[in-house]
Amino acid sequence: MTPASGPAEAPRWRHRHLLDTDVLSLDDIEIVLRTADEMADVLATPGRRLDTLRGVGVTILFHEASTRTRVSFEVAAKALGADVVSVAAASSSVSKGESIVDTTRTLEALGARVLVMRHPVSGAPYLAAETFGGAVVNAGDGWHAHPTQALLDLRTIRRRLGTTDLRGRKVVILGDALHSRVARSNLWTLTACGADVWVCGPAPLLRGFEAWATAGVGGTRRFTVTTDVAAALRGATVVMALRIQKERMGAGLLPSLREYAARYGLSRERLALAEPDAVVLHPGPMNEGVEIEPDVAAGPRSAVTDQVANGVAVRMAVLSLVAGAIAAPDAPGPAARA
Amino acid sequence: MTPASGPAEAPRWRHRHLLDTDVLSLDDIEIVLRTADEMADVLATPGRRLDTLRGVGVTILFHEASTRTRVSFEVAAKALGADVVSVAAASSSVSKGESIVDTTRTLEALGARVLVMRHPVSGAPYLAAETFGGAVVNAGDGWHAHPTQALLDLRTIRRRLGTTDLRGRKVVILGDALHSRVARSNLWTLTACGADVWVCGPAPLLRGFEAWATAGVGGTRRFTVTTDVAAALRGATVVMALRIQKERMGAGLLPSLREYAARYGLSRERLALAEPDAVVLHPGPMNEGVEIEPDVAAGPRSAVTDQVANGVAVRMAVLSLVAGAIAAPDAPGPAARA
Amino acid sequence: MTPASGPAEAPRWRHRHLLDTDVLSLDDIEIVLRTADEMADVLATPGRRLDTLRGVGVTILFHEASTRTRVSFEVAAKALGADVVSVAAASSSVSKGESIVDTTRTLEALGARVLVMRHPVSGAPYLAAETFGGAVVNAGDGWHAHPTQALLDLRTIRRRLGTTDLRGRKVVILGDALHSRVARSNLWTLTACGADVWVCGPAPLLRGFEAWATAGVGGTRRFTVTTDVAAALRGATVVMALRIQKERMGAGLLPSLREYAARYGLSRERLALAEPDAVVLHPGPMNEGVEIEPDVAAGPRSAVTDQVANGVAVRMAVLSLVAGAIAAPDAPGPAARA
Repeated sequence: MTPASGPAEAPRWRHRHLLDTDVLSLDDIEIVLRTADEMADVLATPGRRLDTLRGVGVTILFHEASTRTRVSFEVAAKALGADVVSVAAASSSVSKGESIVDTTRTLEALGARVLVMRHPVSGAPYLAAETFGGAVVNAGDGWHAHPTQALLDLRTIRRRLGTTDLRGRKVVILGDALHSRVARSNLWTLTACGADVWVCGPAPLLRGFEAWATAGVGGTRRFTVTTDVAAALRGATVVMALRIQKERMGAGLLPSLREYAARYGLSRERLALAEPDAVVLHPGPMNEGVEIEPDVAAGPRSAVTDQVANGVAVRMAVLSLVAGAIAAPDAPGPAARA
Repeated sequence: MTPASGPAEAPRWRHRHLLDTDVLSLDDIEIVLRTADEMADVLATPGRRLDTLRGVGVTILFHEASTRTRVSFEVAAKALGADVVSVAAASSSVSKGESIVDTTRTLEALGARVLVMRHPVSGAPYLAAETFGGAVVNAGDGWHAHPTQALLDLRTIRRRLGTTDLRGRKVVILGDALHSRVARSNLWTLTACGADVWVCGPAPLLRGFEAWATAGVGGTRRFTVTTDVAAALRGATVVMALRIQKERMGAGLLPSLREYAARYGLSRERLALAEPDAVVLHPGPMNEGVEIEPDVAAGPRSAVTDQVANGVAVRMAVLSLVAGAIAAPDAPGPAARA
Repeated sequence: MTPASGPAEAPRWRHRHLLDTDVLSLDDIEIVLRTADEMADVLATPGRRLDTLRGVGVTILFHEASTRTRVSFEVAAKALGADVVSVAAASSSVSKGESIVDTTRTLEALGARVLVMRHPVSGAPYLAAETFGGAVVNAGDGWHAHPTQALLDLRTIRRRLGTTDLRGRKVVILGDALHSRVARSNLWTLTACGADVWVCGPAPLLRGFEAWATAGVGGTRRFTVTTDVAAALRGATVVMALRIQKERMGAGLLPSLREYAARYGLSRERLALAEPDAVVLHPGPMNEGVEIEPDVAAGPRSAVTDQVANGVAVRMAVLSLVAGAIAAPDAPGPAARA
């Protein structure tokens, strides 16, 4: 009968924004994934809806083209009963040169309480979060971070492996890590879960990762960096192939797509080095024949479609958690604004 | 009291997809039009809504610009209570080169059960239907097919004429048949109803139709092909003017738009050759002064606005029928997928 | 007990369309602002919604890029329970050259009862209103008019000043009046309220305003035109800085943006000439450092964010009023249409 040992001890979500996975403790990660389980149950029940965000304005502001992430957030927000507004940069005042701060203030004055933002400039959602009175969710900023992708990847891995314990399991992030916000956000979550993470690709696409690996993620959690694809794949439990962003390849970092495919593309032969039931992930959209061969992409180990489906449940979880943090009486508010 | 003569004998809708009108029997066509009548009643009742597609994800994927067809499907799906997502190619991963198969799988994983698809490549919706676990509705693919347009044209003709019996009535399809998915899909439905169909235009824009007319639609149903506009219009009950797609006219198939208008444009003088109460159709958007003169387009015989209004009711019918076919226990499912 | 003195005497809204503020009497303006007060109360109550436009089709047709105005109308229409369709010119048949009249007829046949329209050509919404059977709301046409902006500016001014009486108060419209629909619509409402309006800017950007000032707004209501920014700002109660439309500056009307900023930009020094509690407005998006300095834009006198928030309430008011005018039995209907 000690009240102190009651439910008050259950870890609570404390983040008003979700800008990257670096701020998430293991408890935080478990809260997201447990909430996502509940959301997946809702999605699996035909016609069932939640009222969690009834009357809450969710604005989805995308400054980069995207089908899957934009639609995923839109479906998630609507399934929670939110009032959803979508703004694409091409048709927005952004094309008139309005600043991020002005856009953020404007969207808030128009009723947004949660702002889901994708931007080509690393750090843009942090700038928005300094101004915005509600919650900001980073849906991908430049090369920097894509936190909901890392969380949906984690849910996909755990469900495919049938375990929540990734300690010591070998996870390979393969390809263009340099330009990848997916790689960076995954490094935080995967090392937090104790996975043995390897980052593998051609040397010019690994710039900066050696130094990070030596320093450790969060100053302590080591990972391995290598250009040796066979060494990386040997015994791997999970292989995450990264997209080669053709549009970012002007700088002469790669000799050719054909050579990339020959040396680092995820083929059936290469995948044979991994564990027999290794899980293959890709954040999509895939360049089949470049970073992944079509038979692997469509093969039985591929969890690409699972990732998309898990994305909706994970984003419902994140939206409802940050919205709860705004509504909570003791939530840290924004600085008083003029 | 013979159970065999009960309602079980009423023809049932059996199509999970609607990719073209070639697969529709007369019974199928009647089912669509009868259902459209019910939908039109709903639309005519202010504030009335249906729950037919409550909780069903309908994704509208347009790879070509369109106002009327895109909005028509969107209004139709929302009036049925569906969860509607719109994806325009310009702002989608398609611009990153994602394949039709990947896009289709992604949209399904995001919750789509009905996929409404417009694509500049003939046959693209067939490819999507091979992969997609729900229902695909073709909203226009290349020069090939536009089934809901043919069905709304049929509803418009029947209501304007005040009869469901088109046997022996002369229907003229006038203009650029070569590039027209509207012409092709209409040939299937109109000949199925027994209409006396004439296809008329400059010879280069009739390529392939002579051979089809000789073989017969479905191998049996003949129609007439001619370059003689007076012969075509004489005694016509219905005249359907086709859009001259200026953007497709690079190949030197026509001397000039002015000459086209002079020789084949639907003017009041030409229309005087048809029956006094002949119905004028156009799939829109119209190039007034080219394939149709402004006074005909806005005149009392023009059913162009009726076509648009009928489009919503017909699309509600099609969406509800294919959604019913997915839900039906004995619906033919997709091939098992890896 | 004289029936004639009953509520029938309260002024009633009589406008089916809102194309500009020139047709609004003082009574009309008060009806809009009083209705906006009620709408603001609804918006301030979490989760509260109205059913005023339940089952009413509202189509938002934008032929120019815009975030704030498009989203503002969309949020307003949804908060009233309307069925909202958004059409952007880039993805519409307009890119196929369809005429305004055809587009208008098509959208009506698709179910639109209220058409909110932005168009780069002055007068386009008037053309639409001649054809459309419902109500047309001008959301900005060329250089001509932006009536909801003028009404939200008025609400913002009155609430900031804490009074509904603007008689004799000095209001300065500063900058590129020539290209500004915002300036023109504000001149009607502000002079109707008795304000002492000054229009100030470089001479080439004031073309036509001298003659209008001499003739008087509505033939009677004078205002002042000057190139002398100090004279204009001295003792001002309200300063409305106009956007310099860089994209419209090809004609050599201005030496440079830098020179414009130096001579007419709203700086803290210049603003010190106005009353101590003067209100600063800007229709947005702002070019900070050009027509307004960042410290003024973000300073305590700036009402820019208020303007955005007031826009939603004012647009809810306008949408509900024009929709009421359509529904009213004695509303003047459109001319009978063929």
